Amino acid sequence: MDVKAVIGQVLQRIRPTEEERAFVEGLVRELGKIAKEAIERLGLDVKPYFVGSLAKDTYLAGDHDVDLFLAFPLDTPLEELRERGLELGKAIAEGLDGYEVAYAEHPYVRAKYKGVSVDLVPCYDVRSWKEVRTAVDRSILHTKWALENLSGRNDEVRLLKRFLKGINAYGSEIYVRGFSGYLAEILIIKYGSFLDVLEKADFMLRQKVIDPENWLKKEPEIALKTVKRETEEDKPLIVIDPVDPRRNVSANLSWERYGIFYFKAHQFLENPSEEFFFGKTQKTGNYLEELRRKGTHLVTIMFPKPDLVDDVLLPQLERSARGFERALSREGFRVLGWDAGHRAGEAFVMLEVDRREREKVTIKPGPEFFTERGWDFYRKNEKVWVIGKRLYAEKRVKENIIDVILELIEKNQVALGKNVREDIKNAKILLDYVPKELEEDAYLFLSREKWNLKGQQ
Amino acid sequence: MDVKAVIGQVLQRIRPTEEERAFVEGLVRELGKIAKEAIERLGLDVKPYFVGSLAKDTYLAGDHDVDLFLAFPLDTPLEELRERGLELGKAIAEGLDGYEVAYAEHPYVRAKYKGVSVDLVPCYDVRSWKEVRTAVDRSILHTKWALENLSGRNDEVRLLKRFLKGINAYGSEIYVRGFSGYLAEILIIKYGSFLDVLEKADFMLRQKVIDPENWLKKEPEIALKTVKRETEEDKPLIVIDPVDPRRNVSANLSWERYGIFYFKAHQFLENPSEEFFFGKTQKTGNYLEELRRKGTHLVTIMFPKPDLVDDVLLPQLERSARGFERALSREGFRVLGWDAGHRAGEAFVMLEVDRREREKVTIKPGPEFFTERGWDFYRKNEKVWVIGKRLYAEKRVKENIIDVILELIEKNQVALGKNVREDIKNAKILLDYVPKELEEDAYLFLSREKWNLKGQQ
Repeated sequence: MDVKAVIGQVLQRIRPTEEERAFVEGLVRELGKIAKEAIERLGLDVKPYFVGSLAKDTYLAGDHDVDLFLAFPLDTPLEELRERGLELGKAIAEGLDGYEVAYAEHPYVRAKYKGVSVDLVPCYDVRSWKEVRTAVDRSILHTKWALENLSGRNDEVRLLKRFLKGINAYGSEIYVRGFSGYLAEILIIKYGSFLDVLEKADFMLRQKVIDPENWLKKEPEIALKTVKRETEEDKPLIVIDPVDPRRNVSANLSWERYGIFYFKAHQFLENPSEEFFFGKTQKTGNYLEELRRKGTHLVTIMFPKPDLVDDVLLPQLERSARGFERALSREGFRVLGWDAGHRAGEAFVMLEVDRREREKVTIKPGPEFFTERGWDFYRKNEKVWVIGKRLYAEKRVKENIIDVILELIEKNQVALGKNVREDIKNAKILLDYVPKELEEDAYLFLSREKWNLKGQQ
Repeated sequence: MDVKAVIGQVLQRIRPTEEERAFVEGLVRELGKIAKEAIERLGLDVKPYFVGSLAKDTYLAGDHDVDLFLAFPLDTPLEELRERGLELGKAIAEGLDGYEVAYAEHPYVRAKYKGVSVDLVPCYDVRSWKEVRTAVDRSILHTKWALENLSGRNDEVRLLKRFLKGINAYGSEIYVRGFSGYLAEILIIKYGSFLDVLEKADFMLRQKVIDPENWLKKEPEIALKTVKRETEEDKPLIVIDPVDPRRNVSANLSWERYGIFYFKAHQFLENPSEEFFFGKTQKTGNYLEELRRKGTHLVTIMFPKPDLVDDVLLPQLERSARGFERALSREGFRVLGWDAGHRAGEAFVMLEVDRREREKVTIKPGPEFFTERGWDFYRKNEKVWVIGKRLYAEKRVKENIIDVILELIEKNQVALGKNVREDIKNAKILLDYVPKELEEDAYLFLSREKWNLKGQQ
């Protein structure tokens, strides 16, 4: 199928229908009215703004969560904004179908209305970047900028977002480090179309700096400082925020995710198919056969998923996985790779290692022989010899990897994520076996199909 | 037993009896006479000198080989000295019980007389270090210096030499790198007695420079140059030759051998026994049990001993062993230790490794993804993924250590000693098995009893 036909097919699936549009527009009207009434009732000087992909008309069919921002005057003290903002959110939510309080930089209300999630977020009513006081304040500016510049290319944004989701590179959350929706919009505005953005995958990386609002001319000092800072941190892209020269929109984009985009863009242009947008059915297989094929072993550290959001849990699991990788390497095992996540209520860290057991006796290098510490070493060990100036001795060690891991944990010799430390101390440790619900994760990890640029998305 | 009693017992065993002395003196008289006659017969202007431990009366009972040096005038051209020297050696040997020609810096005659080995070595008749022209010329000066300075402490030298032999630290040959006889004499002359030398084991190392003839005062420039050179080479001791300020008598002494002396001296002073002088019977055991105890594996590379002297063969085997150590480490095996030598006509390199097989599939790091080489790598490999900026792929590898070694040798990826390279290419490679005649070597290596400071000598 040629690329236009593919794009046409995809658009049919991701463009909201007239029916959905009408529903969304009705929703926005009603929510606006309910909000205004609540503001008046509480006697507040607050303006409601719809922001995000809904407001910009860049949402994907079926994915129409509402972001309603409640903008307070700039002279409102922060403490008051927090209190009044939460109060107002609750007052609005009273007219909806239930809510809970969620926490970001400050608390906000997450409500439900007609089956749709509605975030009610207090912020400042900023007119420019110079007035930005909290992390969410820019959203109003982002929405405004996108609306002014999209010029009808909304479907191109939809295509790019769906493509990024399909190849698993969408989302700027810390555990994804991919492309945000706003970044996708900027790229479409800058390069013109979905296909143009894909064709620029290599060019962008080489050009490095993308500056759609010419901040480098308008505010050279500030914008250059941003470029310098982000360059030093070796970011793949530096996209100077059209509404704020101090910010790199792609600050959270990792080289890995960019790499996936890079190769998938190439593959799509060479051989377009809908699979890029929706993912193939995962190629699956038997993890035990994979272990036999590779001659390696799988250690799984597993415990009931703690009550933490993914933003917190996943980085902590990854930190712990890296901790095990380092500790086991020091202990003489080779760690070929790791994976971490949760599935069916179980959090897990998987480690692929080269062997189940290590030699029972290892060689321990000691200090130089003619030193105080040399004499200590000489006295403490049963067999001692000299190579060069140093003493060496035999050391008996735990042999099975499970014993080694238990001892490492017990002696606090693994760097673990602080919120999962206690869980890991009580975790199950499985060798070359995982329970049924983790079998697919084990396969995708061991086979590297999970990350294989040439496999499914 | 107290130290004096031990020393008394040892002296009884190592001091030549009156009978042996008389035999040796007779031998020297007769050899001197035979030599003089041959010199006159050939009409040469040569002086015969007896040198070495026999001449200095520091030989051990039963160990009375004769060194007879034939000193030519300084104005003899080197070529003439070589020719006439060999001629004269042969002429003298005619009156003895058979001989062969041996080769060092120049050829010399090794004869037998009344069951004793007699070396007939041509040299220059030097009076001082300034006249030294060949490596052997100093021997006459050494003998003279020792005779002038020993002052009756000959038995102390015997004790020290026997002690060094017992702990396997005697001999300055390249494959021992221990203490020479001359070095033992200097240490006794410098420190007074056998026990004094042992007590100074730590002090000597700290003082570093020993200069019995005060060359640092008499010839500061030359002596300092020696000190500087040997310091840069990080020698454990710098003993400026009493007869030549350019030379470090302990230039060949290794840190390992000094380390053995260091600990054995300490052990002897704490707990004296005759065993230090004569060695315990080797503690022996089963190498297969040792492998099981340690959970490690033994690779033996074995081939018929080539026709090389130990001075050449052993360093080449060691070089090859280190080559295998490095190559196997690169290939993912851990080498816990190695040994090399020959026994019963077979030369061998033994390597103790952590496992027989490595994983069949390993992770191959590739170039940065956005480069030409990145695209190559991406195209060439079946499974490819990105970590950071780099691509990674799976690589299938040979799994059994024997296959790995064969491939390494075939591809010339092991640094081998040049005189044994071809032998090693055709060598047998054994895994966890050695032929009967190497069983003890394998045990002593694997158990590290061969080098254990706390075990037998």
